[in-house]
Amino acid sequence: MAKSKKTKPVILITNDDGITAPGIRSLVEAVKDLGTIVVVAPDKPQSGMGHAITIGAPLRLSSVHLFDGVESWQCSGTPVDCVKLAVDKVLHRKPDLCLSGINHGANHSINVIYSGTMSAAIEASIESIPSIGFSLLNYSMEADFSAAGLYARILVEKIISRKIDKHLCLNVNIPSIDKKLIRGIKVCRQAYAKYVEDFDERKDPSGKKYYWLTGEFKNFDKGKDTDVWALEHNYVSVVPVQFDLTNYELKKQLETKLKF
Amino acid sequence: MAKSKKTKPVILITNDDGITAPGIRSLVEAVKDLGTIVVVAPDKPQSGMGHAITIGAPLRLSSVHLFDGVESWQCSGTPVDCVKLAVDKVLHRKPDLCLSGINHGANHSINVIYSGTMSAAIEASIESIPSIGFSLLNYSMEADFSAAGLYARILVEKIISRKIDKHLCLNVNIPSIDKKLIRGIKVCRQAYAKYVEDFDERKDPSGKKYYWLTGEFKNFDKGKDTDVWALEHNYVSVVPVQFDLTNYELKKQLETKLKF
Repeated sequence: MAKSKKTKPVILITNDDGITAPGIRSLVEAVKDLGTIVVVAPDKPQSGMGHAITIGAPLRLSSVHLFDGVESWQCSGTPVDCVKLAVDKVLHRKPDLCLSGINHGANHSINVIYSGTMSAAIEASIESIPSIGFSLLNYSMEADFSAAGLYARILVEKIISRKIDKHLCLNVNIPSIDKKLIRGIKVCRQAYAKYVEDFDERKDPSGKKYYWLTGEFKNFDKGKDTDVWALEHNYVSVVPVQFDLTNYELKKQLETKLKF
Repeated sequence: MAKSKKTKPVILITNDDGITAPGIRSLVEAVKDLGTIVVVAPDKPQSGMGHAITIGAPLRLSSVHLFDGVESWQCSGTPVDCVKLAVDKVLHRKPDLCLSGINHGANHSINVIYSGTMSAAIEASIESIPSIGFSLLNYSMEADFSAAGLYARILVEKIISRKIDKHLCLNVNIPSIDKKLIRGIKVCRQAYAKYVEDFDERKDPSGKKYYWLTGEFKNFDKGKDTDVWALEHNYVSVVPVQFDLTNYELKKQLETKLKF
């Protein structure tokens, strides 16, 4: 990126917990002086929305005053909608960087695929806007974001001082511990982990069944180069993420061994 | 997979256009005799839902009689919810194969990331269930699915006759032309293409603005090994898809050049 010293980068900030969540406030505070900040975030919680976009209904966008001296908009859509609307109708240009978060809860390993926070960052990267998604390993609305804010700032400073690929997208997770205990930043690969579902079956007052999604997170990956390993060992994990989903290894197999 | 001749594979079928869409009916008809079919699909259109899951609300699941001799359930959730619920509450086991579609509209290139059809297939692959998503390049509810059904059958037969990776996930797109004009099946990579958004701004009766997402699809990829190229040249495109989003090339750069 390496902007000239005179022009501050334009930084779009979004999230998936909604514009009133403490996590996005911590992120705005952490990077406020590093660029011209514009917030466009969902008007309600949108966790687990993945890369959903709103195609069957229209979207609302309204200006709000939530962060001192920072232009802010709330949007009725998904985190991905927020990025698209921000570029086309708020900024009328591409921002220099897009930040998403700080999410209340982990987005390491397979969570990247369900996460609205990371989908917003991935959407930016598709649009050739370098992006970083931040998540704290603590679901609570009262979580302490001070370590997460500190590392968000360190990473944003690193990125804006370097010439970076326009499709850069980082999935950053921060352990929920005191900042003094954090051992540093580790570049990782996505661990192979998943949820083992166990729907909670209940009956409504009329006797009809309904189901709540619950599940247990299981890590099947013994690698020491994964995000799960790094977080378990008190590192901030950084996984570079791509939107080309082609499985090149399997492509080769299909073309040769399987004679497709 | 290569099941013994006596046991037919259990095939889970879902989609994102909803259980009453003509596309899922064509898919059921096309593969009905190749296995024991169980349908678990959304009770309403869920296009563009990406990998969304329902975490803030409970889910409903109800038995329906829509396909002759085929156990079928409609679910109030997203396509990914359907796969999760099917495994835990309908089948009480993993199916041998999961099919999704046939989608009304293209899911080639970047569409894979927004598509509920493909997210259902990817979810199955995360769960170690081989999967295929099928999409016809025609959005109409009156589209002719005969070529798509034929190629769906050819591909399912290929897969169930071979020993295949449990994480196999294929993104199959079928051109909307007469089957005689289709030149065959091509294994491809995902083209680098995206939408250039242009929100349609309108005013409601009280004068407040609202926005409809519209956009133009643009292919930036000149490669002859892409799904877009194959489809433009009348091939059925097959892109093997993965859920490890790690960008290994960028990981290397971050570790060396960028000194993370």
